[in-house]
Amino acid sequence: MHSLDAIFSPKSVAVIGASSKPGKVGHDIFENILMGGYNGTLYPVNPNAKSIQCIRAYPGLLDIDDDIDLAMIILPPKLALKAVEDCVEKQVKGIIIVSAGFREVGEEGLEIENRIADICMGAGIRLVGPNCLGVINPHTDIKLNASFSARMPEAGNISFISQSGALCTAVLDFAADRGFGFSKFISIGNKADVNEFDLLRYYHEDPHTDVIMIYMEELRLCGQQLIDTVKHITSGDRPTPIVVIKSGKTSAGAAAAASHTGAIAGSEAVYDAIFDESGVIRVETVDELFDYAQAFEQKKLPAGNNIAIITNAGGPGIVATDMTETAGLKLAKFNKKTIEVLASHLPSTANIHNPVDVIGDASRDRYEKSLDAVIKDENVDGALVILTPQSMTNAIGTAEAIVKISKRTSKPIVCSFMGIIDVSEGVNLLKEHDIPTYKFPENAAKSFGALYKQAKWLNRQLLAQFKFKHNKERAKEIIQSCYDKGQWYLGELDGLEVLSCYGFKTLPTVLARTEDEAVKHADDIGYPVVMKIVSPQIIHKSDAGGVKVGMKNPEEVKKAFNQIVDSASKFNPEAEIEGCLVQQMAPRGWEVIMGVNRYPVFGPLIMFGLGGIFVEIFKDVAFRIAPIGRNNAYNMLRKVKVFSILNGFRGEPRGDVETLEKNLVSLSDLVIDNPEIRELDINPLLVHREGKGATVADVRIILSDPDPECVITCSE
Amino acid sequence: MHSLDAIFSPKSVAVIGASSKPGKVGHDIFENILMGGYNGTLYPVNPNAKSIQCIRAYPGLLDIDDDIDLAMIILPPKLALKAVEDCVEKQVKGIIIVSAGFREVGEEGLEIENRIADICMGAGIRLVGPNCLGVINPHTDIKLNASFSARMPEAGNISFISQSGALCTAVLDFAADRGFGFSKFISIGNKADVNEFDLLRYYHEDPHTDVIMIYMEELRLCGQQLIDTVKHITSGDRPTPIVVIKSGKTSAGAAAAASHTGAIAGSEAVYDAIFDESGVIRVETVDELFDYAQAFEQKKLPAGNNIAIITNAGGPGIVATDMTETAGLKLAKFNKKTIEVLASHLPSTANIHNPVDVIGDASRDRYEKSLDAVIKDENVDGALVILTPQSMTNAIGTAEAIVKISKRTSKPIVCSFMGIIDVSEGVNLLKEHDIPTYKFPENAAKSFGALYKQAKWLNRQLLAQFKFKHNKERAKEIIQSCYDKGQWYLGELDGLEVLSCYGFKTLPTVLARTEDEAVKHADDIGYPVVMKIVSPQIIHKSDAGGVKVGMKNPEEVKKAFNQIVDSASKFNPEAEIEGCLVQQMAPRGWEVIMGVNRYPVFGPLIMFGLGGIFVEIFKDVAFRIAPIGRNNAYNMLRKVKVFSILNGFRGEPRGDVETLEKNLVSLSDLVIDNPEIRELDINPLLVHREGKGATVADVRIILSDPDPECVITCSE
Repeated sequence: MHSLDAIFSPKSVAVIGASSKPGKVGHDIFENILMGGYNGTLYPVNPNAKSIQCIRAYPGLLDIDDDIDLAMIILPPKLALKAVEDCVEKQVKGIIIVSAGFREVGEEGLEIENRIADICMGAGIRLVGPNCLGVINPHTDIKLNASFSARMPEAGNISFISQSGALCTAVLDFAADRGFGFSKFISIGNKADVNEFDLLRYYHEDPHTDVIMIYMEELRLCGQQLIDTVKHITSGDRPTPIVVIKSGKTSAGAAAAASHTGAIAGSEAVYDAIFDESGVIRVETVDELFDYAQAFEQKKLPAGNNIAIITNAGGPGIVATDMTETAGLKLAKFNKKTIEVLASHLPSTANIHNPVDVIGDASRDRYEKSLDAVIKDENVDGALVILTPQSMTNAIGTAEAIVKISKRTSKPIVCSFMGIIDVSEGVNLLKEHDIPTYKFPENAAKSFGALYKQAKWLNRQLLAQFKFKHNKERAKEIIQSCYDKGQWYLGELDGLEVLSCYGFKTLPTVLARTEDEAVKHADDIGYPVVMKIVSPQIIHKSDAGGVKVGMKNPEEVKKAFNQIVDSASKFNPEAEIEGCLVQQMAPRGWEVIMGVNRYPVFGPLIMFGLGGIFVEIFKDVAFRIAPIGRNNAYNMLRKVKVFSILNGFRGEPRGDVETLEKNLVSLSDLVIDNPEIRELDINPLLVHREGKGATVADVRIILSDPDPECVITCSE
Repeated sequence: MHSLDAIFSPKSVAVIGASSKPGKVGHDIFENILMGGYNGTLYPVNPNAKSIQCIRAYPGLLDIDDDIDLAMIILPPKLALKAVEDCVEKQVKGIIIVSAGFREVGEEGLEIENRIADICMGAGIRLVGPNCLGVINPHTDIKLNASFSARMPEAGNISFISQSGALCTAVLDFAADRGFGFSKFISIGNKADVNEFDLLRYYHEDPHTDVIMIYMEELRLCGQQLIDTVKHITSGDRPTPIVVIKSGKTSAGAAAAASHTGAIAGSEAVYDAIFDESGVIRVETVDELFDYAQAFEQKKLPAGNNIAIITNAGGPGIVATDMTETAGLKLAKFNKKTIEVLASHLPSTANIHNPVDVIGDASRDRYEKSLDAVIKDENVDGALVILTPQSMTNAIGTAEAIVKISKRTSKPIVCSFMGIIDVSEGVNLLKEHDIPTYKFPENAAKSFGALYKQAKWLNRQLLAQFKFKHNKERAKEIIQSCYDKGQWYLGELDGLEVLSCYGFKTLPTVLARTEDEAVKHADDIGYPVVMKIVSPQIIHKSDAGGVKVGMKNPEEVKKAFNQIVDSASKFNPEAEIEGCLVQQMAPRGWEVIMGVNRYPVFGPLIMFGLGGIFVEIFKDVAFRIAPIGRNNAYNMLRKVKVFSILNGFRGEPRGDVETLEKNLVSLSDLVIDNPEIRELDINPLLVHREGKGATVADVRIILSDPDPECVITCSE
């Protein structure tokens, strides 16, 4: 027996703080359990009442003679703490604390919450909440509605986790309105013990759960562990789709970041990375949440993204066709046989190519023949059937035909029967047979897109990993010597060397302390060269007149050396000037950015995307949580728009994409090996043509505060 | 009396082709008029029936003794034509042809449709359709439901135009489900006579219409005339918001275009330009259509975009806060007094800053006090009130308070009462008082965003126009001489000269026929120079090895001249080689693109956006239909993301934005003066720092087929 069974399927429930006053939470929840038809035994606990709703009440939990599986506590914090102690003595197996007033109101509340959590953990009791809406299990064996909501949803195959109690009621209403049933439904509130992590694993093992929905506000879980677990749920032995709606997109504090990566990588980037890496489908609205869940309930996934559309009206057909592209789908190209069969069954005014238009006066027959023909086509991975009520329309007949064909095929069929009243019989029949149907064709197309996304995720190939031999020791030495000098960032020379330890191609760069050294180095490197000031006091070199490009001969190098040192000294008379870097001119290349930023809890976040001055304008970037291997690097590259240029846009030459994959994995290795690296920008990294590699043109590495406590936080 | 009154408010209606067979269109429409409670007189016309639905039938229209205002014709094309002739004789004022089988099925149908349209026009009869759903006017004086739809909507203030008959039923069902009423509702089908244009003007004059909704598939109207009329409707003496949902986003044939502008400017760009220029609000879904319409029914617009949010739950508050940014809004910053007042009425755990959280146990009182306080704040332009049902929630009381406060203030208030059942009393009260309320806070925030968009449109400032003196004659000469040479595109030298006639800054560029001439020109221009092959047979110069950059002295120029001529001759031995262009090296600048593309009917489309190699990847471009003046140029610039770089990103210097405005207006002048220009790309146009102008680095001008018929089509 799973420890959470006591929460979802208790044999007995005690409501501590049950009340007979309508409007009070203790009344409402007790009544909801009672009226929901709970199949176990229910005990009200209230020292001041003889009975609640004509059910005999007990003054205290310990006054109940029988065993109690689940205690619902509806009491203010201090009384709740006392009740929890009773629960330990009574050996209850699960506790739900509905009441608020804990962590969310301040120090004192947090303290009580922590004490309660400790007590429960010590006694092996699972705790949900505090500050939550409760739990619902509509399954006929249980029928437990231990929640604020007066509505008991129907039994179904969707399980729901909500962080916000407030949204639960709205979601339940919405679901009832659209005829959705749930397997398990929980509001987790402050997550003092039971969190998304526990619930995801529990739902995954639940035979009644086919789709998991989450309403999420924030995660307080370790990134990589979460990713591994969720990956297993979404694509392991029993793949279960997870659809999440996440609020809280505002990324506070971004303006203060020291790097481009820091400025762009708001906390939302972390979530997107987690969802991407673990196969979670993120939606923006509650509508989409249910749209997608409905699609998944059919339990069929398309082999590819070629969709056939059948419609009896041009307009909605166009809408759906438009939407296919946005949803990552393609209009299937029918083979000749299909077209011949369609031609033989449809009038001459019909369109027998995709999207198939069976014309306004189509009755059941044309739909049936057309759907049968297109679904058999090897070029078709699934179908979208659109029906708009017109004079000859036979909604119920068409629905019957769709159900019949759907039973014969493993390809998913989604429908849009437009209009609520006229076509409701057909819609109901489709729903009975788990065939997803939507009010508008755009929703149907988008939902089919979600099916394809899930199919692609399940069928992803795993490329063999790269094998690298990094010079880890040297990199660590450089970083340590920076700390030794009391510096919290790496100078350019050090930064370049650290990168080259991890296989990055950098430009030959040497420090010249005098003008003669500068000429000697330039002669060695080859002209033209770039020169840059080196001084621990000058970070923004250009502002200090400390950068000159394109010196073509020894004279120009000498002149530049003196000009740079001069203007840097004028810019900051206190600056210790070590000399000038002499660097080879960067070869031409496409400008991309690679970067790293760290978030507490989640670990280092790797960024890749369009570089140069456009970074923050277009934010054409992708994120992953390190460590990443080749497959994540491969997908990251393909997530950004600039990839189409790197991949040979319109016959232009390709960039060296494989080197970028290698560099990304190496970058991940670098920051995992060196948790001291807090932020890092390689911008631009110049990508050359295929086989020619990529060159670091500029790098900035910022270290964590050397205070050990902080380093630990950042590397957690 | 307006000619369309006969369509929307006829005193008598004859249904020609009325039938007593259920399921037939002629039966359904007749029954719908009858059952809808039509206030005029209804005459069935059918030669084979004594009566229809117990109403005495007439064998022909001419057998009716009384005057007929409107004839509904439900007959196949040839019989419909005969019926139209009867209508002329009978002097009916309006005709609606419901039946299909005309333009949409081919040549023969189109011919009959055109004949019918001609007959009607000759007789001064307005014609709706053919191939349409009909017309509905729910106003109590009329109550005409001359449509396929069995549902008569409630009377209201929204008027609707739909091109797709099929979608009408779905929209009516949707509206009924959400409690929307209509003023006028029409499906226009093939638009043989009455089109969107006529209806927009008619609706605008209709005292019962406050919001106009359009479902559009395609326009067949002249761009500029439409823009002027619609601009007058959306922002003239009686501003009426227009919300449009447009299907058909696929831009076919884009791949074949000869310019970047052509490739990006699919037909959707034309529509977006028309909507932008005329103040039409485009939405993506039917949901949004009604969401926005509901917001406009309140008839209040915010003075600015500072919104106050009041919520009793954190989660939905976050969702709404996130959405404000997407919707173009800002969270208002309360002044001190407001904060003090909020503090005095709310518990200490409440959040008294925006978004105000009145906490889960808030009843009516806290909402009332908070809303009253924030709406009085001068920094607040409107409010969004979120209510989620919790134990102490008083939905009806809170709604009463909102209604009370709304009556006192001119600032718009939008609400999201979440949950369908529990809060329905409150929702209904809000609706009765035209206070927009939505199921989810994101919809509420988006709808407030639409209100702000409309307010901004109404309050737009009009900057004084630029005054230019273009050298029009010379530009015309150059284009003509190209035609004279049998060329359909302008060579670079000609292209640059045409642009300089219209005030563009171009690089000094001279044709050198010999290596000595090249050196002489390079000496004049100053080193380094760029050199390019000139040959009518070589359009893609780089492919032919015909471009060399950075020649720094006479020797390099000579060498380059011979190399270019050599490799061009090898590339195409047939090519007549005129020599090489010698051009000044382009100064540095931000790369933008300006372009022109033409669409039949709509006129030339001007494009502006991010230039260089990223044009087609990021499609960061804006469009307008020429002619444009300074105000459109101003707005175009500000519509693209790259503007934030041109406008001085993070303390960087600004680009010369005013020159870009001037160049855009000049470009518009150029293509209006020269309808022969079919496509034009200036890419890149290099934008320098403020006051330093912008330089054309490359231009491509393609002319129309010189066949005069085509030139007329393109300049229409």
